[in-house]
Amino acid sequence: MKSFYAKESLSITDYVVRNLAKLRYKKYESYVVNRIIHLLDDFSIKFVTQQYVRRSDNKIALTDLFFPQFRLHVEVDEGHHYLTKDKIDHQLESLPKHIVTQCHEDKVREADIINMTGHEIFRINVYKQDDGLEHTLDSIHTQIDNLLKEIRCKKQKLEQADLFKPWNIDKEFNPQTYIDLCEIKLEDNVILKSQKDVCNCFGHDYKHWQRGGASHPYEEDTMIWFPKLYKNDQWDNKITADGMTITEKSIDESTMQQKVIEWKMGKQKRIVFARVKDNLSNKAVYRFMGLFQLKNIDTKDGGTWERISTMVRTYERKK
Amino acid sequence: MKSFYAKESLSITDYVVRNLAKLRYKKYESYVVNRIIHLLDDFSIKFVTQQYVRRSDNKIALTDLFFPQFRLHVEVDEGHHYLTKDKIDHQLESLPKHIVTQCHEDKVREADIINMTGHEIFRINVYKQDDGLEHTLDSIHTQIDNLLKEIRCKKQKLEQADLFKPWNIDKEFNPQTYIDLCEIKLEDNVILKSQKDVCNCFGHDYKHWQRGGASHPYEEDTMIWFPKLYKNDQWDNKITADGMTITEKSIDESTMQQKVIEWKMGKQKRIVFARVKDNLSNKAVYRFMGLFQLKNIDTKDGGTWERISTMVRTYERKK
Repeated sequence: MKSFYAKESLSITDYVVRNLAKLRYKKYESYVVNRIIHLLDDFSIKFVTQQYVRRSDNKIALTDLFFPQFRLHVEVDEGHHYLTKDKIDHQLESLPKHIVTQCHEDKVREADIINMTGHEIFRINVYKQDDGLEHTLDSIHTQIDNLLKEIRCKKQKLEQADLFKPWNIDKEFNPQTYIDLCEIKLEDNVILKSQKDVCNCFGHDYKHWQRGGASHPYEEDTMIWFPKLYKNDQWDNKITADGMTITEKSIDESTMQQKVIEWKMGKQKRIVFARVKDNLSNKAVYRFMGLFQLKNIDTKDGGTWERISTMVRTYERKK
Repeated sequence: MKSFYAKESLSITDYVVRNLAKLRYKKYESYVVNRIIHLLDDFSIKFVTQQYVRRSDNKIALTDLFFPQFRLHVEVDEGHHYLTKDKIDHQLESLPKHIVTQCHEDKVREADIINMTGHEIFRINVYKQDDGLEHTLDSIHTQIDNLLKEIRCKKQKLEQADLFKPWNIDKEFNPQTYIDLCEIKLEDNVILKSQKDVCNCFGHDYKHWQRGGASHPYEEDTMIWFPKLYKNDQWDNKITADGMTITEKSIDESTMQQKVIEWKMGKQKRIVFARVKDNLSNKAVYRFMGLFQLKNIDTKDGGTWERISTMVRTYERKK
């Protein structure tokens, strides 16, 4: 079987095996996540391990397992993650400080993830049961069974409402899929593997493209933009945790002056596909963030772009 | 949940989680072994990952998964493991030499394991199907389903013959289990956690014991021996691949002269519990090898011990 790196497209086999293979952080994480995926045994349901979630403080959190079709995260609670408030108070003196801090941080983190994304979190507790006893395989398995019931129920409800879209990894990364759908929506978590694939969703027919952006063949006031939304050598771009506002700022002052002219004279709308790292391959991929419009220009703080739509139209290739 | 290292006894939870967590060698190994264990979902069946197997050349092989109750090993065949003879010839020039060697070695290895142990090997092929196509999740899952059928069938047959002994990790490491059974048999793969536990199977009531051997409270011609059956600073001991003959040899010549006297004057039978490393904790544990009798003394080549029984009697504590 060829390596993922050597392939253009990622097979579902590679995807599933690689996602499960990277579970190394926590002692029980691999056991619990493997059991969930193997007993669920339904590969029409997409899963992502160690899913990045943007928090309100602009930091990144990782959840252990994420089912995007149900907006459901799974967290495996080990040891200190499960200390309750009164236990913290009791044990405060005997516990290392970083663990006490972590308990507090975990709660902030959970609230954060729920507030920011509107997603649910299902927790699997592998530490203490309510009666104070250590968890056994049976008690861990019961929790996983409950999760599986919940997932199957969610799928069934979506199916009954004709809203369930089965996972199809080949379609997922193919621009034609989005051309056929006539649109790209934020809620669909669209990630494409290259800039040419993004461009080709909007009418281009590129074999290769690698720049900061591209023109839109059909919409004159719009460009396609591939920003890095984090600080790097050239840029100090930011996106707010709610995903609504992007600040575009150059590190270099003379570039900033050019940018100000570009912002004033250039296209005022941008379809944003942020450049992010794929958590399996570590390669750059492009995640759809919405349609943004220029709102403010500041020679010091940079350009401010506001999201005006969570959906953009796609186009057949220009003949 | 406390760490295994901090505990006297190993819980089944720790055992299962740790066994699955150490699967890191091959790309598909973790996926396949996790799926087998979670879908089998029967913890009356013992499993060992990365089981050591002694080969005819006195080297050690590892199999990916072993079910001791059924004497069944599972091997996950990745890539080069599955090249057939004519493919090897075709590809010989393009393949790195170590891989060609490995193909040949794999076959020798499999024959070895089967010959030496009388165990079966079930292979899961994750590389090429018979028609030359790459394996998909479905084709891997079908092979695993077939293995699960075979395991369940083997268990059922043993149960019908009243020969199935359910896995019980608490009993497994408890000397009282073997006292109650009245015997220790080679085929039961008996491993104990400390020398005192071994001694206490034969009538001792030790709280602690750590030496090269111990006397037998009931059998005057017999001692209990804890040899390292591999070369180390003091000893160059060996056991043949069939487990029948142990050679005891000191590295130091003057010690050898003392040993010769000891062999001549001392007890001529030894119950052997070899000191081995536990593959989960890396701690020393003691594996039952049989009852041996002194056969030959050579001042240069050392003492030769031959196995005279695969079974020894156990005794209640001396009052």
